[in-house]
Amino acid sequence: MNKFERAQQILTQMNADGWLIICDEDSDINSRFMLGVASHAQNYVYVARDGNHVVLAVEMEAPMIQKSLIQRNVEANVFAFKSSDDLKNKLKKVLGKRKIALNFGENVLDFEGTAYADYLRVGEFSSIKKLSPKTEFISSAPIIYNLRSVKSPTEQKDLRNTCKATIEILELVPDWIKVGMTERDVRAKIEYEYMKLGRPSFDTIVGTGPNSADPHHNTSTKKIKPGVLLIDTGLQIDEMCSDITWTFWVGKNPQDKFMEAYKALYEAKKVANQYYTDGTKNNIPAKKCRECLADFGYDHEKLFFHGLGHSLGFEAHDIGMRISHSVPDGFILKENMVYTNEPGLYWQGEWGIRLEDDIIIGKSKCDQVTDVPLDPILI
Amino acid sequence: MNKFERAQQILTQMNADGWLIICDEDSDINSRFMLGVASHAQNYVYVARDGNHVVLAVEMEAPMIQKSLIQRNVEANVFAFKSSDDLKNKLKKVLGKRKIALNFGENVLDFEGTAYADYLRVGEFSSIKKLSPKTEFISSAPIIYNLRSVKSPTEQKDLRNTCKATIEILELVPDWIKVGMTERDVRAKIEYEYMKLGRPSFDTIVGTGPNSADPHHNTSTKKIKPGVLLIDTGLQIDEMCSDITWTFWVGKNPQDKFMEAYKALYEAKKVANQYYTDGTKNNIPAKKCRECLADFGYDHEKLFFHGLGHSLGFEAHDIGMRISHSVPDGFILKENMVYTNEPGLYWQGEWGIRLEDDIIIGKSKCDQVTDVPLDPILI
Repeated sequence: MNKFERAQQILTQMNADGWLIICDEDSDINSRFMLGVASHAQNYVYVARDGNHVVLAVEMEAPMIQKSLIQRNVEANVFAFKSSDDLKNKLKKVLGKRKIALNFGENVLDFEGTAYADYLRVGEFSSIKKLSPKTEFISSAPIIYNLRSVKSPTEQKDLRNTCKATIEILELVPDWIKVGMTERDVRAKIEYEYMKLGRPSFDTIVGTGPNSADPHHNTSTKKIKPGVLLIDTGLQIDEMCSDITWTFWVGKNPQDKFMEAYKALYEAKKVANQYYTDGTKNNIPAKKCRECLADFGYDHEKLFFHGLGHSLGFEAHDIGMRISHSVPDGFILKENMVYTNEPGLYWQGEWGIRLEDDIIIGKSKCDQVTDVPLDPILI
Repeated sequence: MNKFERAQQILTQMNADGWLIICDEDSDINSRFMLGVASHAQNYVYVARDGNHVVLAVEMEAPMIQKSLIQRNVEANVFAFKSSDDLKNKLKKVLGKRKIALNFGENVLDFEGTAYADYLRVGEFSSIKKLSPKTEFISSAPIIYNLRSVKSPTEQKDLRNTCKATIEILELVPDWIKVGMTERDVRAKIEYEYMKLGRPSFDTIVGTGPNSADPHHNTSTKKIKPGVLLIDTGLQIDEMCSDITWTFWVGKNPQDKFMEAYKALYEAKKVANQYYTDGTKNNIPAKKCRECLADFGYDHEKLFFHGLGHSLGFEAHDIGMRISHSVPDGFILKENMVYTNEPGLYWQGEWGIRLEDDIIIGKSKCDQVTDVPLDPILI
C-alpha cells in the first residue's frame, strides 16, 4: 500500500472526504513526504478518500511533480495554475466537500495537544475557509500520526542504510581534522560526503571548546583548539534521517573530568536503552538515565537541560512525543517507532559532552542501530 | 539603528505595543533574521515598542540566543522555559498588552494580499488567543515589509560579497565537471565550497539533459551526459543570499538551437535590466523581456512558464512582489530592492536554458551585480 492508499484508509475511519496539504516553499514537510519531491513554490496536495487525488502546482513545477508521482505508482491529477484567479477556481472545485482534514494542531502548547500536525498558516486557513464556507475543516493529526510515527520495514531499512553511511563518515573524521581548521570547515567536509549520498538531515553542529556547551550551537568560524570537540550530525537517504552525536577530545591527554563524564553518559545511555521498548511510558527511559547520572554524582537538573530523545524519521525531529522526564505518564512508546538516545552534560563557559544513538523501539528489547564509541576518540 | 530599533519605530507608527514572532524549528525565518541565530526548537521573540524586548526559549538554546543578541548590541531579556505550564505563564506576561502584531498574512491568495507575512500557524494562533483573550492581534506585514524589502548599505555590501564568491566558484566548474559524474556529485562539490564560506541559499539545482527543462528540478543521481547542463545555485554569507543560474553545454559542438536560445535569453535579460529602476511597475521588465523573446521568434507563452524575477535577500525567495507579466499595475519597484533577472526557455523532454543574474534596483539605472557569461561555456 502506498502512502496515498494508507491515508485513504484513515480518512475512511475519520469519515472525512479528503486531506488537503498546503505548502509554500517547503513550509509543510508533508507535501514532500507525499509527493517525493521538494517544491520551491506553492502546491496543494489533495488526498481524496475516493482515490480521485488532485495536486495543484505552479506551472513550472507541475511536470516534475507528475513524474515523481508516476515513479511512485500514485495516480493523481496534477493541474498547473497560472494565476491567482485560476488557483482560486481550481481550489474551489477541490474544496467543495462536506468534511476536509487540514494540517493544523489543537492545544499545541500542551503535551496532550497535536503540535506535530500544526503546519497550516493563519492566512492560508482564512483564505481556504472563504473559498468553501460550508465545508467542515478538521485537524489531520490522526493521518499524520498514523502515516509517520511507527516506521515501516522499508523505513527501517532506510534508517540502517543511512546510519551505516553516517558512521563510516564519522569514523574517518579523526584522520583529517586538524587544530586550526574552523568548525565550518569540519561541517563542510562532513556534509560534502553526505551530499554525494543524499542530503544533510539538518545543519551539522560542530562545537569546539565552550561552543560544545550549547547543545544547538550554530557552527561558526571558530578554529578547532585542543580540548572537547562535539559533532552532532545526520544524513538523509531516501525516507529516513540519521542523527548522531559523537564527542571527541583533540589532543593527547584528556581531562579526567571529561573521561569520567564520557563514561557516565555512556553507561546512562545504556541503562536508558533497556527501556526503549513497546508499552513503556515515554518518561521512563529519561528518568532511568537521570538516576544513573545521579548515581555517578552529577547534578543532572543543572547540567543536563534537555530531553533524552526525540522521534526520528523523514525529519530529524519527527512525529511523536519526545522521551523526557517531563512528559506525563499518558504517552507510550510503540514497537517500530524510531528514537534518539542522547544524554548530555554541559558546563557553560567550559565544554559539554553529548552521546547520541538512533534506536528502533523493540517488543521487549530495543534495536540499537548505532552505538557511539565506548571510549572517547582522541584526535 | 539595529533591527529591533527599526521595528520599534514601525510599531509606533502602527500604534501597536509589540511584535511577537513564534518560531518552531526555523518555521518563521524572521526569528533567525532578528536573533542572528537559527533555532532547532521553539522560541518566542517579542519586540516591544518601549524597548523592553523579551525572548522565550527552551533551556538548551537560551544561552546561545543571549550571546548572539549581545554580539548584535541588542538589549533583551532572554528567559528559558522549562515546561508547558512555565511557557504559558511567561507568555501570558508578554501577551497582556492592548495590541500586538503577529506574523500572519491577509488575503494571501491575492496579489494585493500579504502572503509574505504569513508564518504563524493555525494552532499556535489559537493558543495565543486563548492566553490573552483581550488583546487585539494585527498583521505584522508592515513591519516585515519595512525591515526586509529595501536593502540597507550593509545588505548590499553582503550581496556583492556573496555574489563575488559564488561567481568565483562557478567559474571553476568547467575545470572539474566530467561526463559520468552524477548531478548530486556536482551539487556536493559546489556546496562544499559554499559551506566553507557560509551556507547554501537553497538546494542547488543541477539538471542534465531533460532534467534542465524542469526549472525546479530536484538534483538527482542521474549522470552528466553530453548536452545541456543547467546549474541554479546560491550562497548565503552574513545577511544576504546570492541566486545565480548558468547554463553550460557539455561537449564540443553545441546545437544551433541551444546557441540561438542562449543568445536570445542573454539579449532579453539585457533589455529587461533597463527597467529594473525605481518607480517602474513590477510587470514592465517581464513584459519587455517577453517582447524581446517574441522578436527572436520564441513562443514565450509556451516555453517560458515562470516569472522573470523574485526579490532576493535574507532568503533566496525574499519579501516583495515578484517581477512578472502577470503582476497587476499597482506594484512598483523601489531603489535598493534586490531582484533576480532570470528568463528561461524550456523544451519538455529535451532540455531547458535559464540565465539568472542578481540586480540592485537603481534610481535611473540598475546595478547589475552579476552577469552570466556572454557566450555559453563549453565543458
